[in-house]
Formats: sequence, C-alpha cells, structure tokens
Amino acid sequence: MPTQPITLQPNPNAAAGTSTAALRELLERRRAGYSLEAPFYLSDEIFQADMALIFGRHWIFVAVAPQVPEAGDYITVDVGHDSILIVRDDDMQVQAFHNVCRHRGSRLCEAHQGSLGNIVCPYHQWTYDLTGQLIHADHMGESFDRRSHGLKPVHLRNLEGLLFICLADEPPQDFDQLAERMRPYMAPHRLNECKVAAQVDLIEQSNWKLTMENNRECYHCVGNHPELTISLFEHGFGYQPGPQNAEGLARFEGIVRESHARWEAMGLPSAEIETLDSMVSGFRTQRLPLDRAGQSQTMSTEVACKKLLADFPDKALGGLSFWTQPNSWHHFMSDHVVSFSVIPVGPGRTLVRTTWCVHRDAVEGVDYTVENLTRVWNATNDQDRRLVEESQIGVASRAYEPGPYSPYTEGLVEKFCAWYVDRLRAGVSTLR
Amino acid sequence: MPTQPITLQPNPNAAAGTSTAALRELLERRRAGYSLEAPFYLSDEIFQADMALIFGRHWIFVAVAPQVPEAGDYITVDVGHDSILIVRDDDMQVQAFHNVCRHRGSRLCEAHQGSLGNIVCPYHQWTYDLTGQLIHADHMGESFDRRSHGLKPVHLRNLEGLLFICLADEPPQDFDQLAERMRPYMAPHRLNECKVAAQVDLIEQSNWKLTMENNRECYHCVGNHPELTISLFEHGFGYQPGPQNAEGLARFEGIVRESHARWEAMGLPSAEIETLDSMVSGFRTQRLPLDRAGQSQTMSTEVACKKLLADFPDKALGGLSFWTQPNSWHHFMSDHVVSFSVIPVGPGRTLVRTTWCVHRDAVEGVDYTVENLTRVWNATNDQDRRLVEESQIGVASRAYEPGPYSPYTEGLVEKFCAWYVDRLRAGVSTLR
Amino acid sequence: MPTQPITLQPNPNAAAGTSTAALRELLERRRAGYSLEAPFYLSDEIFQADMALIFGRHWIFVAVAPQVPEAGDYITVDVGHDSILIVRDDDMQVQAFHNVCRHRGSRLCEAHQGSLGNIVCPYHQWTYDLTGQLIHADHMGESFDRRSHGLKPVHLRNLEGLLFICLADEPPQDFDQLAERMRPYMAPHRLNECKVAAQVDLIEQSNWKLTMENNRECYHCVGNHPELTISLFEHGFGYQPGPQNAEGLARFEGIVRESHARWEAMGLPSAEIETLDSMVSGFRTQRLPLDRAGQSQTMSTEVACKKLLADFPDKALGGLSFWTQPNSWHHFMSDHVVSFSVIPVGPGRTLVRTTWCVHRDAVEGVDYTVENLTRVWNATNDQDRRLVEESQIGVASRAYEPGPYSPYTEGLVEKFCAWYVDRLRAGVSTLR
Repeated sequence: MPTQPITLQPNPNAAAGTSTAALRELLERRRAGYSLEAPFYLSDEIFQADMALIFGRHWIFVAVAPQVPEAGDYITVDVGHDSILIVRDDDMQVQAFHNVCRHRGSRLCEAHQGSLGNIVCPYHQWTYDLTGQLIHADHMGESFDRRSHGLKPVHLRNLEGLLFICLADEPPQDFDQLAERMRPYMAPHRLNECKVAAQVDLIEQSNWKLTMENNRECYHCVGNHPELTISLFEHGFGYQPGPQNAEGLARFEGIVRESHARWEAMGLPSAEIETLDSMVSGFRTQRLPLDRAGQSQTMSTEVACKKLLADFPDKALGGLSFWTQPNSWHHFMSDHVVSFSVIPVGPGRTLVRTTWCVHRDAVEGVDYTVENLTRVWNATNDQDRRLVEESQIGVASRAYEPGPYSPYTEGLVEKFCAWYVDRLRAGVSTLR
Repeated sequence: MPTQPITLQPNPNAAAGTSTAALRELLERRRAGYSLEAPFYLSDEIFQADMALIFGRHWIFVAVAPQVPEAGDYITVDVGHDSILIVRDDDMQVQAFHNVCRHRGSRLCEAHQGSLGNIVCPYHQWTYDLTGQLIHADHMGESFDRRSHGLKPVHLRNLEGLLFICLADEPPQDFDQLAERMRPYMAPHRLNECKVAAQVDLIEQSNWKLTMENNRECYHCVGNHPELTISLFEHGFGYQPGPQNAEGLARFEGIVRESHARWEAMGLPSAEIETLDSMVSGFRTQRLPLDRAGQSQTMSTEVACKKLLADFPDKALGGLSFWTQPNSWHHFMSDHVVSFSVIPVGPGRTLVRTTWCVHRDAVEGVDYTVENLTRVWNATNDQDRRLVEESQIGVASRAYEPGPYSPYTEGLVEKFCAWYVDRLRAGVSTLR
Repeated sequence: MPTQPITLQPNPNAAAGTSTAALRELLERRRAGYSLEAPFYLSDEIFQADMALIFGRHWIFVAVAPQVPEAGDYITVDVGHDSILIVRDDDMQVQAFHNVCRHRGSRLCEAHQGSLGNIVCPYHQWTYDLTGQLIHADHMGESFDRRSHGLKPVHLRNLEGLLFICLADEPPQDFDQLAERMRPYMAPHRLNECKVAAQVDLIEQSNWKLTMENNRECYHCVGNHPELTISLFEHGFGYQPGPQNAEGLARFEGIVRESHARWEAMGLPSAEIETLDSMVSGFRTQRLPLDRAGQSQTMSTEVACKKLLADFPDKALGGLSFWTQPNSWHHFMSDHVVSFSVIPVGPGRTLVRTTWCVHRDAVEGVDYTVENLTRVWNATNDQDRRLVEESQIGVASRAYEPGPYSPYTEGLVEKFCAWYVDRLRAGVSTLR
C-alpha cells in the first residue's frame, strides 16, 4: 500500500495541485540525453502526479489471463489506492471492477486470488453478480434503486493473454493499433492456453522510473548479471563500435539475419517494431536469438519446460521481447513466457511482479521444475533491485545532478524518459 | 503515538490551517443519509482537525475509576500528542494533569499505571505533590517562583465510575445535564465499587469514525458476530419491517415492554434517552433484554461473575447500554460492566480500549474467569477490526463515493455523522 | 535514513521555504534562559532548516582519523540524504567526496567501511581514482569529457585525528582559530597514532537538540548516571552555592588548581577556553581532574588500557574535554579517547555514534577489554537516551511551554540554544 498521505481533495487530478507550477518548470527544463532531476525520483507530489497522470490515464499491464482460467476465478490487483477485481464471468470474458462496495465502501474481496459465484460484501452482505450488477441488499427500503448501485467497471483488454487495464474514463485509443501490430507476434505462443507456473513479487526500495530505466538498457548487464548473460548475446547491448568489437558485432548481426529468416519462414514475425516515444501506448518488440543452445533464458540455455508452447516444432525460437510504456516487459520463448509488471507503491517503493507461464498441460516435476524455470530471472531481478536501490539513495544526495546517457547503450532509457516527460506534460496541461 | 507530522504553528487551533477552506466546503456539501466523503477518513489535515476540534474540545471517555482505586494510584492516557496523568489524590478525589514537567518538558510518568507519593520528574527531580503543586526544585536560584510552576490541570469528571476528560479550557457545559439524566441509570450498578478484571487494547488500521460508525449499527451483526448475537435479540437491530419478520418483531417488543416494567419496579430506569445529535455532549441510553438466559453478554448468556454487582437480587437485568459522542459505549449488566474507549492515533489508526469491571470482592478463578468474561467482546472486537480495516482500504479507492444508509438499521450511524459534521462545523467557525 | 518527505525544490536553501516567516517569528521571540519552543523539536520544516542551515553550513564532527589508517581505507558517513565517502589517498591524505556517481547517480560505496584501489561504480563500472578523478567510462562516445565528471569534493579537516567536514561551498573560516587554539591541548594525546577499539551507534527517538542540550549539563547526572558519576566530581556540575556545599566546592576548586599546575608543568594545557556562543565554530575545552584513582572514565576510575597514549609517563591526567557546536564532544584521557558524534536522522530521531580509541599497539585482551573500556559510556548513553526520549514525548504535548534553565547548572545549555538560534537566524537571513 502506498504510504503517502492522501490530500483533502478527492479529485485525483488535483494530486499535483499546489506544486503544479514547480512540476511544469521541471518538465520544461528537462535536458534530453541526461537522467532526470532528483525530484522525479523523490518527491511525494510527483509520485502523486505519476499515479494520477501516468498510471491513472494509460494502459498498464497488471496480470496474465491464465491467472483466471475458469468462470468465477478472480484476482485482485492494487494500483495505488485502487484495488481492482479482475474476474472471469460466466461467458468466459475477463472483466475488471473496482473492488469497492457501493454501500459504505468496504473492500469486497480481500484475497489476492480465489473463486466465487457472486460477489458478496463481507460487511452487510450486499451481493453483486459477475457482471457487477447489485442483485441483493437487505433493509434498504422501498425507494432504493439497486440498478444504480452496481460495481464500477474498469477498462480491460486481453491482448493474447496479457491483461491491460486503464483507470481513466477515456483510455488512450491507440492501444488498438498496438494490439493489431502485436497480435501476429504473440498469437503463435498461445499464452491464453497456458497456466501460471510461478509468480514472484519483489519490493524495490526505489522509484518506479529507476526500475523502468534499468530495464531499458543492458549497459549494466555484463558487470551485474552473470546468470542472464549466459543466454544473451553481449553484442546486442548497444556497445560503442570500435576495432576491438567490430568482428563480434558483425558476427552477431549475421546471426540475427539468419535467425529472422528462419523464424519468419515458420510464421513467426521477428522484425523490430519500435514506437516507444512515438505513441501514447508506446511499445517495442523484436525477436532476438539466444546464445549457446539458443532455446530459453535458463542457466543451460535449453528449454525449462519439455512440453513446448503451442506444439511448436522447434525449441530454438530465440526470445520474442515485448516492452510497453509505462510498466511492463515480456519474453516469449518456445517453452515459456515470462512477464514483468511494475507498480509504484510510493515515491521510493516499487512492486515488480514476475510471472512465468508454461503450457497448461505441462506437469511440474515431469516437464519442468519451478527452480530451473525461475532461476535466471529471480537472480537477475534481485541484482537489479540492488542497483536501483543504490541509485535511489544516490539521487537523494545534494551532489546528484543529471548525468549523460551513453549514446550507444542507453538510447531506450532516453526514450523512456522522453515518453514519460511528454506524457506528464500532456497530463499537467489538463490540470487547472 | 500519532505518526502525523507536527506543523510549525504550536497553536492547536491552527492544525487545520491551510486547508480550512477545503474542509469547510466538504462540511457544507455533506449529504444527509449517506456515508462521509473519503477525505474524512483519510486526510492528515482532517485528522488534525478531528484531534483539535473534536477530541480537543469535547468530553471524551478515557478510563474507569476502578483503575485508580487507592490514594496515589495513577494511570497515564495518551490522547494525540498529549499524555494525561490521572491520579487519585490524598482526599480520594480523581485528578487529571498534563504529564509534562514545567522545567524542560520531560514526560513525568512513563508507565501506563502505578502508584506514587509525589510526582518526581526523572530528568532533574523536580517534585510535585498529588494536587500538582511544585514542592521541590534544586539549583533554580533565589528568584525562582515555585508557585507559578505547578502541573497544568485537565478537566475531569467522574460520572458514577466513568472518567471523562476535556482538554479545552472551557468544556461543554451540557455534560451536567448528561450526568443528571444518566446517574439514576448507572448508580445502581455501583461501578465505583468495582475492580478492573481485564483490559485489552486493540489497534485498528482505520479511521476512528469508521470504528464509531461500526458501533452504531447492528446491520452487520448477523453476518459477522456469531458470539455476540447469542445474547442479542436480532429484532432489536432495526430491520426493515415486512411480513417475514412482523411476528418476530411484535414478540420482541412485547419482551421489551415486560422487561422494562419489571426493571423499573426494581428501581432500574430502563427507557430510552437519545440526544445523540441534539446535545454537544450527545448520548443515548437504554436497558434492553438479553436473549436466552438473559443475564449477560457471554457465550452461555449466563452471568460471567457469580458475585453480582451492588448485591443485585436478580441476575437477569438485561444490559443497560450507554453510548456517548464522540468516543465511547458501555454495557452495564448484573454481573459486570464492559466499557469501550476509542482514541484516534492517526488518520488510519485507532485504539479501542476495552475494560471489564466486576465487583471488587469477586475472586478470579472462584467467582469468574477472565477467559469467560472477555470472550464475546474480544471475538466481536476482532471481527469489527477486520470490517473497519476493509472499509478503510475501500474508501481510499477512487471508486468510493458515499453510499446510502439503510433508513431502518443505520439511523444511529447517521446521527453519529450528523453530530460529527455539526461539531466540526462549529469548531471550524472559530478558526481564522 | 531521514524519513521526512523530499520537497519538489532541489535547492537545499528552500527546505524551509514556505514556512520561513513562521520560523523567523519563532526565532525572534525566543526567550533567553528558557528552553526552546516545541516546534524546534518537532516540526519537519525546522528539521529541514536544521539540516540545510546548521548541518549543511557548519563544520561537523563525523569520524576519527584512525578509522582510515591505511591508503585506500574508506568509510561512508550519512548526513541527512548525503552519503559522504571519506578515504585516505595514496599520499596518506584524508579526502572526502560525495558518494555519488556522476553518471546516473548511483551510490558508489554501500559499505560503512572498507578498502579499495579505485572507486568503481557498481552500476556501469565508471571508475574514479582516490583523488576523485574519473579515469574510466565505457561507451560514452568521443565527445564525452571525463575531466568534467569527477567526484564532487567535500571540505574536510583533520584536527589532530578528529575529522570534521563541511557541506557548504564556503565553510566557516574561524575553524582555523579553533584548530590553532585546540592543537596544543590535543596534540600530546596523539590520536592520529591510535586505533579504534570500539564504535557503537545508538538511535535516540528524539530531536538532536535535546541530545545536545542533555550533553551540556550535569544537573541530571546524580539522579541518572551511577556509572559516570563514579569518576566525576559532583561539585563540577554547577551547583547553586549554599552553606551545605560550600566546603565541598572549595575542596574541588583546590583540586582543580593543583591538578592544572601539575599538568601544565608536564606540557599539558588545562585551562578552560570557552567560545560556545561567541564563534561560528564555537567550542569549549578544559582539562578536569577525575575522582578517586583519577585516571579514566571507567568503573574503577583506573585506566582501561595498560598501554598509555603517547607514552605518557603518568596515568592520572584527568580528562581533557572538548565540546563543539553543533554536534560533538570528546574526552581525552591518558589511556584512551572517547568521541561522540551526533547526526540528526529525522525531527524525532538522532544517531549518537561513540568511538573509543586506544594506542595502536595496544592488544585487546592483554592491554584492554572492550567491555571495560566501553562500560561507563554505554550505560550513560543509554540513560541519556531514555531521558531525551521522555523529553521528546513531553515537548509534543499542548501543555509544554519553555521552562527556565537553572542559572547555575544549565548555563552551557543556554549557550547551545543561543548559538543555535543565532546561527539559524543567520542562515534564514540568507533565504529569499
């Protein structure tokens, strides 16, 4: 739960109220190619603005459809102070509601996941069906209108098994374009037919933007991620070209070309699409070869699950990566999909939820072990946690000033910051 | 201890300073019959206003006289940042002082309870007698005037064994009327001649008003309080009348009439008095029959203590309930008295202190056991804690909007809110 | 780490921004001879002002040189949000830098102490030498200028083994006068040739000024410090003169005179110097006799370490005390030096770091035991912790008002407050 105080104004747009002018000034003077000024990582007011204007107005990734496989299955997800109830209804559609009773506001479902027939408030037993209609409320008198007291819906999209929600009344419309372009990449992996093999929550004592910036470069990988770099080609990290790495770089580019040709022939789109700072629902995708056995992000680089996704005929499909603004990344391989959802919980506190999915018929202990499936990213996440926590401490110093991004290895960090600053500017412009 | 920051202005009236206008607007637009808007449960500023204008200006229930049975016995009670020292002086009068040394401000007594001859500051041994006079201070020089450095008194009233304090310079005068009307109800139980059998502190992660609202209705009881509802008549909860409960309701009303006639004949006033929203020191009382054996709020509904209070000739005296604004309720039975004091400790954090008293000659293990005496209310308190904590989480959601109170079962909740809004309005009107 | 929120404005001078007027008013009305008003101990804004204007602009004691005995040895010290890296360079000079990478702001060294050849950022391996120059950074492109990305220095002075830093661009110049006057007193003890025998961190739940005020009087000693008062002469505490203590006082003054004569003859300056409220870098020193065996602040009053400092020929050198504004005190004895550094970590949270040094050739278990060396001050610190925590609670009460200082025993407390108010006034006058 966020720890910041809640201000008097119930209007979420007013979160950045008194300091809007200061925020505008900070946004105006942001220097491209340099890290953000300290208040973006530290200030309560900017955290509130991030929650209201970034997480409150954009499509955010919160879960995978395999978390609610059957009718009546539900999960709850916290985004800021908002508890969201995601439930599969009797028509097998995934729905999202605010997890709040319309009587006196009690949270309806306390558990992170479960299964239910109707949604019954624990306080006075007001009862809603799985489409959110209030179907029962005692002692409310003759004039009480049940129809105007249904649960408040939340926008939800199921993009080939990835569940995105938007808390705004009017969500960004360009998510349709994102979906149209991404479906051909993702559909072959059939995530909707997977099951969740593991899910791990990590709390990082840092601002969510440091977590995202960390995700958008691999400049830090060689020095910090011994497990992850087993399967990653170092020359894909964006190194400064020079005589010492010319040969390696050329070899890597050759492997990418050959792999793409092979995968495209199998019906697996592989070419990069990159709209990270050119769309409101900015994203990037690319299918990239993996090193050594080339099969999966594991310690051996071989598949973690013998039962492949979608009855793929080949194990060496590399990794289809999918990055979204503002809060997710995903790697689709032949044997499993790993998804990352980043949710701020305070100016200096962030949840990173990692979910591993395998074929729903795969059998734990036979086809895969959780230990082998999760080892690389559990280790990597923890290494990243330490890095961003050290950054959070450092940027709070009076000595911190924005430093230069590498023009080679930190281009996508700059795109993240540029998108963020642009979207926050757009949001601030709608405030009084 | 409250966790909110302390502002620059030492004047407690200024607590709601900068946001007085916003608070006024929230108070003006409050819709009768509906739960309060979210900031009343969440905002730091309104919490400060509650502490200054509600808890700082009204009579609040903090303890029972049996907690300080002998001369020199003391307890300390925290109300916000104020530590109050309640001590029985050598004339057997209960006195209250601010528990703060007049030298450099050290808290005088750290313990929750104890016994002392004089009050000696641990820091430099300044010494006060039990009437608060400074009687000793070393090295302060010839011109130092001890008489102007006595302890600062706090207003205290002992209402038949219930101790109310008021932190204001000029307490509400209508407490005298409350006392005059309540003494005939309470006096027969002789609480001043009781001893404390048990006291339990519960911290609820919720706003104090959610705790109070929960106390003011039993709409939630059937669904949540299996222990408490053994002895309570369900038809006293204010159900919406209808064919399905007409017979039960008529039967219950008959039992009340018969019981009242019997008790009044024994000298036990039983009729309802209700001034919850019509007095500054608003209260309500009523003696109500208990179900089954009808003796006490226990699992068996029989007395928890064989030694009856006040040498009552009858065990089945029902329960004399006494509710006060803003922070207490009490049940006086033939065998014991149970009292509840609600003290806010933060916008989302509240202390509920429950005290069970029995005849001072009752012997633990012989006449009563603490387990049996406390079981129903310990269970009920914990169930209520969960309910109000779920409400606290829910009202923080952007989806929360004030919902309608049941016109049948939530009338006293509305009276609590109406009183609160009225008193806060009166308080705010005295600020700049 | 401080717990207060970080405001939008990155300018530390603006910390007291919105409430500068209120702070000015509090400073103006401060009544000499009385304890400070409550906001000085409680308010977030004044805490921020203290950090910016007192701890950000004055020389503060943070460590002893024996903590970094060899080239490459480093310690890190936190002052507010600033992590300071103190390192002995290859020329054996002690240097201080902001512990912050110039790339994306990561903290460089996480450990409290260690040893290193170069300073390598854990994030992207930017590498600095021990003079702070950036000597390596990969992938930054041809136009990147390493010379403009060196570590930011912090002013540091090594005063005979005591390390003072100043975070301001232009430190107070009168530290040179302090150093000139103090060197003759301190040099004979040769602290630079000592080793750290023990260091203990204590967190006090109180404002740092209560900790300092507590240090500046011994009015509280007889009632609270049974261990410390074994070696201290009670008549040195500043008692109000009277017939009952005239004889004791005269005897004590005689002992001081005789001791001073003896020590001065040995080349040990002993006379009091006191500039606590007359210099920006205010201090006080005095060599005072110890009671009983007269050798050291131990339970037996005999030396705690058989190997004396500086090959002193005599064990009974009393205690050379050195007090500095705003945050330290020290006792130099024949066998050890004990130093105290006070660092605020929140309005109601303070670090007291105590360091005991002995001759670097002394052998633990042979020449001294840590238990015996540290017992008196560990006990005393804990007693003081409780006293200041009780004061912190008390001054938060609405009943607290500044009380009178004893004209006899609390003169140096008044000098601390006078210095503090004066320096804060000077700081506030430089704000907009």
